[in-house]
Amino acid sequence: MPAIEGLRIATAQAGIKYKGRTDLMLMLFDPGTSSAGVFTRSKCPSAAVDFCRKNLSGGAARALVVNSGNANAFTGKRGSEAAAMTAKAASEAANCAAGEVFLASTGVIGEPLEASRFTHLLGSLAGEAKPDGWLDAGKAIMTTDTFPKYATATVKLGDAEVTINGIAKGAGMIAPDMATMLSFVATDAPIAAPVLQALLSKGVGKTFNAITVDGDTSTSDTLMLFATGAAAKRGAPAIVETGDVRLAGFKRALNRVLKSLAIQIARDGEGARKLIEISVEGAKSSRSAKRIAMSIANSPLVKTAVAGEDANWGRVVMAVGKAGEPADRDLLTIRFGDLRVAHHGERDTGYSEEAASAYMRGDHIRIGVELGIGRGKATVWTCDLTKEYVAINGDYRS
Amino acid sequence: MPAIEGLRIATAQAGIKYKGRTDLMLMLFDPGTSSAGVFTRSKCPSAAVDFCRKNLSGGAARALVVNSGNANAFTGKRGSEAAAMTAKAASEAANCAAGEVFLASTGVIGEPLEASRFTHLLGSLAGEAKPDGWLDAGKAIMTTDTFPKYATATVKLGDAEVTINGIAKGAGMIAPDMATMLSFVATDAPIAAPVLQALLSKGVGKTFNAITVDGDTSTSDTLMLFATGAAAKRGAPAIVETGDVRLAGFKRALNRVLKSLAIQIARDGEGARKLIEISVEGAKSSRSAKRIAMSIANSPLVKTAVAGEDANWGRVVMAVGKAGEPADRDLLTIRFGDLRVAHHGERDTGYSEEAASAYMRGDHIRIGVELGIGRGKATVWTCDLTKEYVAINGDYRS
Repeated sequence: MPAIEGLRIATAQAGIKYKGRTDLMLMLFDPGTSSAGVFTRSKCPSAAVDFCRKNLSGGAARALVVNSGNANAFTGKRGSEAAAMTAKAASEAANCAAGEVFLASTGVIGEPLEASRFTHLLGSLAGEAKPDGWLDAGKAIMTTDTFPKYATATVKLGDAEVTINGIAKGAGMIAPDMATMLSFVATDAPIAAPVLQALLSKGVGKTFNAITVDGDTSTSDTLMLFATGAAAKRGAPAIVETGDVRLAGFKRALNRVLKSLAIQIARDGEGARKLIEISVEGAKSSRSAKRIAMSIANSPLVKTAVAGEDANWGRVVMAVGKAGEPADRDLLTIRFGDLRVAHHGERDTGYSEEAASAYMRGDHIRIGVELGIGRGKATVWTCDLTKEYVAINGDYRS
Repeated sequence: MPAIEGLRIATAQAGIKYKGRTDLMLMLFDPGTSSAGVFTRSKCPSAAVDFCRKNLSGGAARALVVNSGNANAFTGKRGSEAAAMTAKAASEAANCAAGEVFLASTGVIGEPLEASRFTHLLGSLAGEAKPDGWLDAGKAIMTTDTFPKYATATVKLGDAEVTINGIAKGAGMIAPDMATMLSFVATDAPIAAPVLQALLSKGVGKTFNAITVDGDTSTSDTLMLFATGAAAKRGAPAIVETGDVRLAGFKRALNRVLKSLAIQIARDGEGARKLIEISVEGAKSSRSAKRIAMSIANSPLVKTAVAGEDANWGRVVMAVGKAGEPADRDLLTIRFGDLRVAHHGERDTGYSEEAASAYMRGDHIRIGVELGIGRGKATVWTCDLTKEYVAINGDYRS
């Protein structure tokens, strides 16, 4: 991960819940950094999400504090006090206003977060912060993730090269509309906050909002995008209009970064051994295609079949049928990879159990559904449902 | 299970998929029997469901044929031919029209059903059929169920006693709006088909449509209600109007039978060790309460926590939040059994981890949610999500 000019990173072991690993991350931004964010649609959001939503209207960012191990969600008045206390300490460390601080917390819900465990660390972290701290940052925000998630892209903006870096954490409670998913993306491109927000809001549709691990939407989902603007010194043009044509390449690069991070989250779902990519075509509309794809992606029976390497396309039929979207059984075609397993409402005449079973032993399973009634299409990603998911979640809190 | 006058039952080992157990059930009804049915809302229904829907308009029933081991779903033209062939054989055995026959099939999807494996048995089964075959009938329709499901009630209709018997099978692919759930209920009460249909359609809302095992809706869900009318000879009045006040007691008894069968299905969900009863109160409307209750009931994280005997009420908060229904985090109260674990948006001040953990060791877990914003309420039932669910479904087909 290259450095992003205009920001510095530091991490620490605060011992919030985990022992022997980092669980606190501070990102400092130079003055002039703009921000954008997309948050959980949960009706019971965490204190950190409430806090970020309030500060986002300012459009400016100077500090981001993320802790893992405790979500500071459903913690009542004490929760918002812990958020305010963290922001105050961060604003002192970064020498900025509390309104320029952003927060994210991930971990167990309902346990009060003792902010005093780490607020005293922020001052020294600010002193240590370095531009090349991305790899450490990705590790500090993990919970049950088995690997840290990174993506980077370099692209021309005007005549200057700009960089986009992103980190993410996921694992459980992952569903569209943001899940216990934290992701932070930053660039040195000089892009105004409203434009940044528009890019991000549009970008999530086919990336973060197209993944699911368990259909459970968290109280804490946060995806933020920061633009330090440091590339302006190297001649990158300041972008202040959403329709600016010079954005085209940047937009594609940003979407690639978002998609890479989102797919890494799906691949690293709790207990997962296989990534499942579900493409639906020929639906009445793209919206309908996405609903059908999500119905398949969230079906425990489809996901356990993939875990068992069982070419059980009948369960795909079931999940299409239960989606409640327009579908005609007798026009339906289903593919596993390039193998057409079902066609025109019944098992394909050329179906080979051997070939289908061999395909299911791979670790990237592509399920294709062709509805044959319209032009709507969508692709979503999920993972298999294994005994380990149950084991991880049966005693996560204890 | 007492006999129901006016019907006879026989079962057989046809070897459709299972060895050493019965997998075929024939129920014969005397002339004059009326019928009602509720079926899956899947857009990809099985051939048997298509067949029943067509015959239901006639309102008369003389034979019901159920096979387990093969769902005859997504089997194309061959599927409807297999259904027609079965109905023809049954109509010859019962000496009735094919339009008076009803069918249900449960088991694997997408495999052609070889009806010839059992159609030749129907003639001799008709000869053997006896009024007291209910216990055998419950066993013959099982798939991955660990116990057969029965319920019975006796109630006055006018001055005569009438009986209501029911059997059901469930286990996986169970969700509201009917799932791979078959249930057959019969009574000797003389009730006309339109009245029977009204009773059944109303009765499912708080019973069969209030349970979920995995949120997966099957292609084959079938709940049928038959009324032989034999009690008319003993003075039971013929009921031909839905509003007939003499129906009140019968209606309550029928709903008790439906509820008992539905809860047995939830309790026997694949891999389940615990029954979970979720009651939501104080919602904006009953519809909203039910959606929130189902959001909790279908949450893999709530279900795995119950499997792990973990009093993780934070996940209940999460599931309330993701339902998308009106809710105010800071008014929320959550109970496990009689223990108030969260109140006014945070952990209850009197919360005892010891007491909560002890409660979770029970095998019937009641989760109560009070939203405090309206008068809507609903209760639904589900089961815990265990490693066994994954094991059962990871190699069910093979």
